[in-house]
Amino acid sequence: MPLRLDTRSPDFDARFTAFLGTKREVSADVAQAVAHIIEEVRTRGDAALVELSRRFDRVDLEALGIRIGEAEIDSALAACDPATLDALKLAHERIRSHHARQLPESGRYVDPIGVELGHRWTAVDAVGLYVPGGTAAYPSSVLMNAVPAKVAGVGRLAMVVPAPDGQLNPLVLAAARLAGVDEVYRVGGAQAVAALAYGTATIAPVAKIVGPGNAYVAAAKRHVFGTVGIDMVAGPSEVLVIADGAQNPDWIAADLLAQAEHDTAAQSILMTDDDALAEAVIAAVERQLATLPRRDIAAASWADFGAVIRLAGLDEAPALANRIAPEHLEIMAADPEALVGHIRHAGAIFLGGHTPEAIGDYVGGSNHVLPTARSARFSSGLGVLDFMKRTSILKCGPEQLRALGPAAIAIGEAEGLGAHARSVAIRLNL
Amino acid sequence: MPLRLDTRSPDFDARFTAFLGTKREVSADVAQAVAHIIEEVRTRGDAALVELSRRFDRVDLEALGIRIGEAEIDSALAACDPATLDALKLAHERIRSHHARQLPESGRYVDPIGVELGHRWTAVDAVGLYVPGGTAAYPSSVLMNAVPAKVAGVGRLAMVVPAPDGQLNPLVLAAARLAGVDEVYRVGGAQAVAALAYGTATIAPVAKIVGPGNAYVAAAKRHVFGTVGIDMVAGPSEVLVIADGAQNPDWIAADLLAQAEHDTAAQSILMTDDDALAEAVIAAVERQLATLPRRDIAAASWADFGAVIRLAGLDEAPALANRIAPEHLEIMAADPEALVGHIRHAGAIFLGGHTPEAIGDYVGGSNHVLPTARSARFSSGLGVLDFMKRTSILKCGPEQLRALGPAAIAIGEAEGLGAHARSVAIRLNL
Repeated sequence: MPLRLDTRSPDFDARFTAFLGTKREVSADVAQAVAHIIEEVRTRGDAALVELSRRFDRVDLEALGIRIGEAEIDSALAACDPATLDALKLAHERIRSHHARQLPESGRYVDPIGVELGHRWTAVDAVGLYVPGGTAAYPSSVLMNAVPAKVAGVGRLAMVVPAPDGQLNPLVLAAARLAGVDEVYRVGGAQAVAALAYGTATIAPVAKIVGPGNAYVAAAKRHVFGTVGIDMVAGPSEVLVIADGAQNPDWIAADLLAQAEHDTAAQSILMTDDDALAEAVIAAVERQLATLPRRDIAAASWADFGAVIRLAGLDEAPALANRIAPEHLEIMAADPEALVGHIRHAGAIFLGGHTPEAIGDYVGGSNHVLPTARSARFSSGLGVLDFMKRTSILKCGPEQLRALGPAAIAIGEAEGLGAHARSVAIRLNL
Repeated sequence: MPLRLDTRSPDFDARFTAFLGTKREVSADVAQAVAHIIEEVRTRGDAALVELSRRFDRVDLEALGIRIGEAEIDSALAACDPATLDALKLAHERIRSHHARQLPESGRYVDPIGVELGHRWTAVDAVGLYVPGGTAAYPSSVLMNAVPAKVAGVGRLAMVVPAPDGQLNPLVLAAARLAGVDEVYRVGGAQAVAALAYGTATIAPVAKIVGPGNAYVAAAKRHVFGTVGIDMVAGPSEVLVIADGAQNPDWIAADLLAQAEHDTAAQSILMTDDDALAEAVIAAVERQLATLPRRDIAAASWADFGAVIRLAGLDEAPALANRIAPEHLEIMAADPEALVGHIRHAGAIFLGGHTPEAIGDYVGGSNHVLPTARSARFSSGLGVLDFMKRTSILKCGPEQLRALGPAAIAIGEAEGLGAHARSVAIRLNL
């Protein structure tokens, strides 16, 4: 049974605060094991990849090759169901065209005293994309990570994916081909992250690593952060549905379960001002669980972390939603726009009853890599800017230097940085 | 003596590659000590701050108070040299007006099939700003970190600064007042980072922490990354000067030393196609060192990490500069614009002989918090976007759901996520 809260209860605030503090993931302390794996790959390169893949993935990279060749990708493509491929193509095109709008503009201007200021955006040269193996090998994730990189203009996009027992998901390889991934390697875990960060004879190093992974992958990304850039370290994911009494409880239940089926640590929350709807959704969840392929996972998530929060009125929802800062927020109400302006912290917002989150996961066009575990308070979903960087540009002539120089000298001297002051003074004959 | 390289030597590439790989910082392994300090602050709050500040900073926070009150800041302001304050005010206004141009636009659009897509930028609610104590307590750094946060619209900006032996730099407090910092706390080290991340009775938690610090602060930021957002972990800083033979060697020497005086691990590099200029700069550095207040630091940096690279022609410079990815790049050449278009990786570029980097450090208006240690390959200088985040918005009606739904169902089923597929199918009566 999910947790039930009611804003009209005297202890609501204490219980809501405790709910926010619930730890949903026991993060294994794997930092030391990961440091050792990374050191192995740094010092022994490909040989370490072969050895570690044999140990962890039961796969012989000496026989199969570390790199997955074009012919192998061709065969994978041929093995895919054509209807699924068409769906991925539609997804690819919609993701591409939406992200193309995120390309930033470079520019310069001259300020009132004649100083020229500007900035230039350039793409990261080489990016590594981690793709989990096994059941979490999602072709949609490949598209969501690879497409913004390619739209940004990343020249070299290298994907790593483990092949436990030699198995690869053909759809993952198909998505890589569609998205224009340049190189694919049959290696995973912390060893793959190390190879991308430091390079081996086979895998040239990249400048940034993105993509989801297990605790080892997350620890490895944290470890190499600084040597290369990394995206966020993803936590367990969540959905918050805000609904009024006129909504369809079966649709809401389906959306809550779509989140819950990801992971036993996923979280699905309903907020409503209608008792009857709350009860109908809870009943619908139980009913739908019975026929769900991943019912064990979804049922555990719903029982352990699910919540139904009864509001006195929907106007209470934004403030509570901002405290949750959900990865996904569905607003299913007669006038969703009335609420959306008050939401400050959410990864993505889905408006109205006909926008189930799954549309955003696959074919809406916006990115499904979103800030989890309350991190929407300080971070954004993945986008084109994550694969670009900004160089600032400054240009003074003699007149501008005369105007600004004395202040720079004063600050340099006050900070005890004499050479800073002198580098200005020497040009002004001061 | 600095390292000398020449692109015309047969072993240039090997030597340049080795030069790029030089480790300039021995990073002390303080992760375990930091984890312990953080745990202390998490469990014992203010009491731990008092105890740790007594131990590490020899300061009694029970007597002085953890928070620095407005009256104390007023007194500090009154104690500042008025000319220096005026210089900081000029810097503040120029930084503010430049960063105001970085404010991003929110927006929505409707695609050809009627799907509404959009994004909204919002500020982070609360940000913590770490300011080092002692000699590295730079008022300019306070401005460079605080102003973009305030321009972004951050409602609560909390600054922490250690007071070793009770001492605080009045200019740092003055800069905090100028920049609109909302709260100032007399605490530093990993304990200050922990207080900002998890909160204590006195210090409410923030959502993001920025600002430079020593190895303990860097390790603490890495530790709390995920619970809060952090900015980059700064490494030793560097300047690359590209100069033709017509430039003034004294000016170049002054700029190289302005970088070198920061830190013995700082790095100053000159690239030129003119032998005479190279020799003149080397001689000028020696001459200027003699009268530099921080000559010991600057001399060590120049001797250990300085480099003079002789080019066959300036057209060789961009490719080499891109491999260095310098934090600061000065282009002192007759036609700097001819080179700038080929630079892909640099934190900031300073054009022409009248733009010494120190102008950008203080009063140019652009930010001086820039990616160090080759991280300009994948990251940008600090800006307004670092204090904001983007929420994506998606809205379908029944017609759009009918158009996109079948593809979403196909992908959901192919990924084994039955509840994802069902959440779409149930709305289409499929």
